Amino acid sequence: MLAEELETPVAVVDLDILESNIVRLQEYLDRHSILNRPHIKTHKIPEIAHLQIAGGAVGITCQKLSEAEVMAQAGILDIFVPYNILGEAKLERLRRLHRRLNLSVTADSSAVIEGLVRALKDEGKQLPVLVEFDTGLKRCGVQTPDEAAELAEQIERSSALHFAGLMTYPTNQNTKPFVLETKNLLDAKGIAIERVSGGGTHCMWEAHTHEVITEHRAGMYVYGDRKTVNAGALGLDQCSFKIHSTVVSRPTNDRGILDAGSKCLASDLISPGGGHGLILEYPEARIYALSEEHGHVDFSECESRPEIGDRVSVLTNHCCVANNLFDKVHGVRGGELVVEWPVLARGAVH
Amino acid sequence: MLAEELETPVAVVDLDILESNIVRLQEYLDRHSILNRPHIKTHKIPEIAHLQIAGGAVGITCQKLSEAEVMAQAGILDIFVPYNILGEAKLERLRRLHRRLNLSVTADSSAVIEGLVRALKDEGKQLPVLVEFDTGLKRCGVQTPDEAAELAEQIERSSALHFAGLMTYPTNQNTKPFVLETKNLLDAKGIAIERVSGGGTHCMWEAHTHEVITEHRAGMYVYGDRKTVNAGALGLDQCSFKIHSTVVSRPTNDRGILDAGSKCLASDLISPGGGHGLILEYPEARIYALSEEHGHVDFSECESRPEIGDRVSVLTNHCCVANNLFDKVHGVRGGELVVEWPVLARGAVH
Repeated sequence: MLAEELETPVAVVDLDILESNIVRLQEYLDRHSILNRPHIKTHKIPEIAHLQIAGGAVGITCQKLSEAEVMAQAGILDIFVPYNILGEAKLERLRRLHRRLNLSVTADSSAVIEGLVRALKDEGKQLPVLVEFDTGLKRCGVQTPDEAAELAEQIERSSALHFAGLMTYPTNQNTKPFVLETKNLLDAKGIAIERVSGGGTHCMWEAHTHEVITEHRAGMYVYGDRKTVNAGALGLDQCSFKIHSTVVSRPTNDRGILDAGSKCLASDLISPGGGHGLILEYPEARIYALSEEHGHVDFSECESRPEIGDRVSVLTNHCCVANNLFDKVHGVRGGELVVEWPVLARGAVH
Repeated sequence: MLAEELETPVAVVDLDILESNIVRLQEYLDRHSILNRPHIKTHKIPEIAHLQIAGGAVGITCQKLSEAEVMAQAGILDIFVPYNILGEAKLERLRRLHRRLNLSVTADSSAVIEGLVRALKDEGKQLPVLVEFDTGLKRCGVQTPDEAAELAEQIERSSALHFAGLMTYPTNQNTKPFVLETKNLLDAKGIAIERVSGGGTHCMWEAHTHEVITEHRAGMYVYGDRKTVNAGALGLDQCSFKIHSTVVSRPTNDRGILDAGSKCLASDLISPGGGHGLILEYPEARIYALSEEHGHVDFSECESRPEIGDRVSVLTNHCCVANNLFDKVHGVRGGELVVEWPVLARGAVH
């Protein structure tokens, strides 16, 4: 079956491009002796995770325990969950995963560490815990090296846990100074920083410039999207993930309506007024609005324009959230359908 | 089990509020002799659709054939799909649904009508087709009454189809003049406009003011969200759908991080800079950014602030796209869990 025969809207991955993205990042990280621990939140598909591991990744990163549970069932045994795990139900699930896997997590507060200690105090095996620090995203993470060092000590005081290092997102110019200051504080206590885990696809080719990074977590590099292309991390021809859509209406000469809306492309913006995706066959067109099941397109800048029933391919603004909207992703090679992948960890938000 | 014991993030529906929303709209539409044809794209849950029908709805509206297929399997037999159905695969699915159901669809071009005729020419039963017209949303729909009348004639010329009337979204002040002009044109040809289908939750209480409307399609009225509240269509205490979330980090005195991000709340904005949801326990807080699995909250305007591990309830910006991100919705009454509803038509984009 040809990709162009698939009913639209449909999420299509070019396997040649996907594979070469996996190889290229692995080669880069290998060259700089940085471990590769790709983030599977982008694809949520076990077989792609296995391709990443077969390509040389040391393990994977999952953002939620439920993603890790899906990946563990698919036989992936080294999983990092850089998330604050809280609450008795989640701690019980964490304990079960810890028994089965090489699991590691993060913490950015005493409260989180206390929960981990309480849940794991009777296990024979220590859980590696990294301390998350904030390099400017203003999300999670301790704000100062002093706080990081205090939490590292708290972790090391528990026989249930092992302080495994530091983690941040994204890796940037604030990373190295923070790590070195924390290292100074911890050297005095005899506590080593084994892992420094950095992350991000947009900044992946600079991972080596921060020197202190020992592993890198990139997610979107397998697929690519407008954000990745705008950041210069991937070229347009290095993007493997597209939404194929059909023009279902041409109400005016300038306007065309796609059968893919916010329930396919997602509403993430790359800039205010920057549109909702790039139509590869009509790069001058602008997806100026999304309804749930319609993409509203202005073709006024295009010399040629599509007819009702024509198919187009859309590069999404943000591939991770678009992928998460589909039950299946279709892998193609040379335009021919090779595999239908259920997005097995779709909806895994717990 | 109590709702507050459910693992977060979790989508929770208050059944008392849901039911009273269903009753209130039905009573209003009954009072004005307007048929109620609720849009199930909001909830995608067959049991809620059955509650709407038991409450007096004449049938339901689905935006995609795949939603209609799910609802048909749940025993719902009167379904309107106000969408341009194109392509052989979809037309085959349409034919199968047409044989099983009281199905009706829309068209806004000759190309769409030609496809319907080709697909249904050998059926013994006519498919009701409404012509979609544009009242200013700049989405699908013919632009002029002349176009509408031409398409109505094209539909009536085919023995496979029956011209059933006109459809628009949203219903507004442009609706009546358009319908009356089209009626004038069609009266001369002896073609009746049986149905005039209007839509929208934000404008539902004005449906009767447009006079020409014979049926109304509202979706969000069962759930409610910030958009619905801002439009004045529902009060805050009439919103039944919330995302329960846990505060997983408090990196600074002002900042708190939720375990619900864009993969739970969706990235739809109600206004630029307007935030990503309303935290009901902290109405002065601002969800200023979303990562995929984190909500970034500024609590600086709040006198009291949550601690790590505290639970909050978030009213979403747009309930339909948030609901579509969850595998299940939890129905509660008086804080007690009553039902877990699989979001059965989630991902039904075809």
